[in-house]
Amino acid sequence: MNDQVILLAHGAGGKKSSELVRSLFLRYFGNPALNILGDSAILDVGSRRLAFTTDAFVVDPLFFPGGDIGKLAVFGTVNDLAAAGARPIALSAAFILEEGLEFSTLERVAASMAESASEVGVPIVAGDTKVVPRGSADKMFITTSGIGLVSGERAPSPERASPGDIVLLSGTIGDHGMAVMSCREGIRFGSEIVSDCAPLHDLVACLLDAAPNVHCLRDPTRGGLAAALNEIAVQSGVCIEIDEANVPVSEDVRTACELLGIDPLHVANEGKMLAIVPESEAEDAIAAMRSHPLGTNASLIGKVQPSPAGRVHMRTSIGSLRILDIPTGDLLPRIC
Amino acid sequence: MNDQVILLAHGAGGKKSSELVRSLFLRYFGNPALNILGDSAILDVGSRRLAFTTDAFVVDPLFFPGGDIGKLAVFGTVNDLAAAGARPIALSAAFILEEGLEFSTLERVAASMAESASEVGVPIVAGDTKVVPRGSADKMFITTSGIGLVSGERAPSPERASPGDIVLLSGTIGDHGMAVMSCREGIRFGSEIVSDCAPLHDLVACLLDAAPNVHCLRDPTRGGLAAALNEIAVQSGVCIEIDEANVPVSEDVRTACELLGIDPLHVANEGKMLAIVPESEAEDAIAAMRSHPLGTNASLIGKVQPSPAGRVHMRTSIGSLRILDIPTGDLLPRIC
Repeated sequence: MNDQVILLAHGAGGKKSSELVRSLFLRYFGNPALNILGDSAILDVGSRRLAFTTDAFVVDPLFFPGGDIGKLAVFGTVNDLAAAGARPIALSAAFILEEGLEFSTLERVAASMAESASEVGVPIVAGDTKVVPRGSADKMFITTSGIGLVSGERAPSPERASPGDIVLLSGTIGDHGMAVMSCREGIRFGSEIVSDCAPLHDLVACLLDAAPNVHCLRDPTRGGLAAALNEIAVQSGVCIEIDEANVPVSEDVRTACELLGIDPLHVANEGKMLAIVPESEAEDAIAAMRSHPLGTNASLIGKVQPSPAGRVHMRTSIGSLRILDIPTGDLLPRIC
Repeated sequence: MNDQVILLAHGAGGKKSSELVRSLFLRYFGNPALNILGDSAILDVGSRRLAFTTDAFVVDPLFFPGGDIGKLAVFGTVNDLAAAGARPIALSAAFILEEGLEFSTLERVAASMAESASEVGVPIVAGDTKVVPRGSADKMFITTSGIGLVSGERAPSPERASPGDIVLLSGTIGDHGMAVMSCREGIRFGSEIVSDCAPLHDLVACLLDAAPNVHCLRDPTRGGLAAALNEIAVQSGVCIEIDEANVPVSEDVRTACELLGIDPLHVANEGKMLAIVPESEAEDAIAAMRSHPLGTNASLIGKVQPSPAGRVHMRTSIGSLRILDIPTGDLLPRIC
C-alpha cells in the first residue's frame, strides 16, 4: 500500500477498496470468518449458524427516486444476510447526525426504516445516536448491522464457485447507481431512473427451496456486477465467463451510462442477487427466481471455468472475449 | 418533540438524547428487545441467548491519553455486551473515512483495534469502509457492533433494580471525559489525566461468579453516572439513592471539573461498571470487584428505594439530600 492518503476510490468498491481490505484490514484483523470476505460472516453458536454483517451508508442525496438512506440501510443489511442464505432475525442502527439537521428529515428517514424493517419482518433491536458539530459530517450517516440464521446444510460462500457451475443474475443491473447519480447531478435521461432498492431475503428463500445447493450468492452493490464477479473468481480460484448479451440492462440505464461514459457492469445495484449454482440445479434455480416478483428478469449470464483462476472473462456482444477487470478509480462516490 | 433541528445535546447522552430515543426511535422502531433500552438487546436464538449491541464512535481527537478511537470502539462494544452479562463472541467494524485522511492514521487505528480485540480474545469478523469527499466528515468515524453469549439464568437488565438492592461502582468516575476534553482543548491540570478506557468483560465475569443474581449492570459512558442512574431508575420504576462521599473521583479529575464548572457525575467513563445487586450478594459482589485489577477502587455508593419512582437522590457531602437529575445541555461533545 503506497498511497499516503485515503482516496474516494478506497471506498468505491473497486480495485482500491479491495487493496485496502487485503493490505490493511485482513492484515490486522484477519481470522477465518473474516478472511472469506462474504457479504456476511458465518459464526457457529451452539448448534446454530449465525450470519453477521455490517454496512455504513453515506448516500448523497438522502432521498432519491425509489428510496432513501433509511430504506437502503435496512434492505442493504437484509441483502447481505440473504447472500449468506440467512433469514434476518435482528438489526441494529447507529446514526451519526450533523448538528442542524432538520428534525423532520430524521423523522422521515426513521419512518422509512421502520416501514422497511416491518416489510421484512425484522426488528431493529439496538441503536445509537451521535451528533457532531456543523461541518463535521454531511447531514446523516447510518450504520446498520444484522444477524441472521442460516438454515441450510452449508451457507453459500464466495469461496464455493466450482468449474461447471452456472452463473445467474436476478434482473437488470445499474438501476440504483444511475438513479442516485442522476438525482444528485440533476440530470434527466428520458424517463426517470428508479433505484431497484428491495429486500432479497424472500427471493433467496425461494431460490434455496428450489436449489438447495447454491454455491455462491452475492449482492452486487458498490463496484457493480464486475466487482462481485471478480471477488468470487479470486476467492474461489476459478475463472468466471459471462456473456454480455445475456446481462439484463434497461434501456434508460444503458442510455444514461453511455452518455456519462460509465460501464453498467460497474454500477451499484441494491435489489439484485447474483447466484452461482451447480449445473444440475440451474434450471430449477432460474425458474424459482423468475417466479418471484423481484426476479422476473432473471437471466443465465455465464459459466464457471477452471482457469485462468481469479479472472472474469466476458464474451462481448460482437463475439470477442475480453477480460472484465475489477473496476478502478472513483466510480460513483456516495452511492450507498 | 418541538425541536426543529438536531442539536449537539441530542447526542450527548443526557436529557435531549433520552427525549430523542423515546419520542422518535422508540415510537418508530419500538419492540420488546429495544424498549428495555439496555446496553445490549437480548435475543433468544434456539436454546441460546444472544446479546447484540451497536455504537458509533466520533471522538475528537482520534488519539488521546490512554486510548484512541479504535481502542474505544472495541472496548466500548465489549463493555456494552458485558453490561448484559454476556461474553463477547464477535465484533464488526464499519469505517466512514474522510478523503485525504493519512493512511498512517488509519493504520495506527486499525493496529490499536486489532490489539484491543486480541486482548479481549474476540475476533472482528465483518467490516465495511466508506469514503466521503473532503469536508463531508471529520477524519474518521467508526461504528462497531457486537454479539455476545449470555450464560446466566437471567441477563442483568436496566428494568430489574428492586427496592433494597445495593448500588456498586467499580472505580473512579470522569477520567475518560476529562482526558479527551483536556487533550482536545490543550488544557493541562497538574498531572495528565488518562482515559480509563478498558474492557470490562472479565471484571463482569468475576462479579457474576461471585454474585450470580446481579440485577443491573450499566457502563456509564455519555451523560456519566448521573445519566446511567436516572435511566435505571426510570426503567425499573424505583428511586436510587446515592451518597456523594462514596463516589470515587480522582483528585486530578475533581480539580479539572471544578475549573471547568463540570459535574464529574455528568462526565463519560469508558472503563467503569455500575452494578445493582440484591443486598444478600452485595458483600460478595464488592469483594469480587475489588479483587480484579480494574475494580480495586470499587465502592458501595448507594441503595435502591421504592419511591419516588424514576428519581435519583444524592446525599451530598454536607449531608443534605438533593435530586440528581439527568444532565441537560451539550455536556461534552464528541467524547466517544
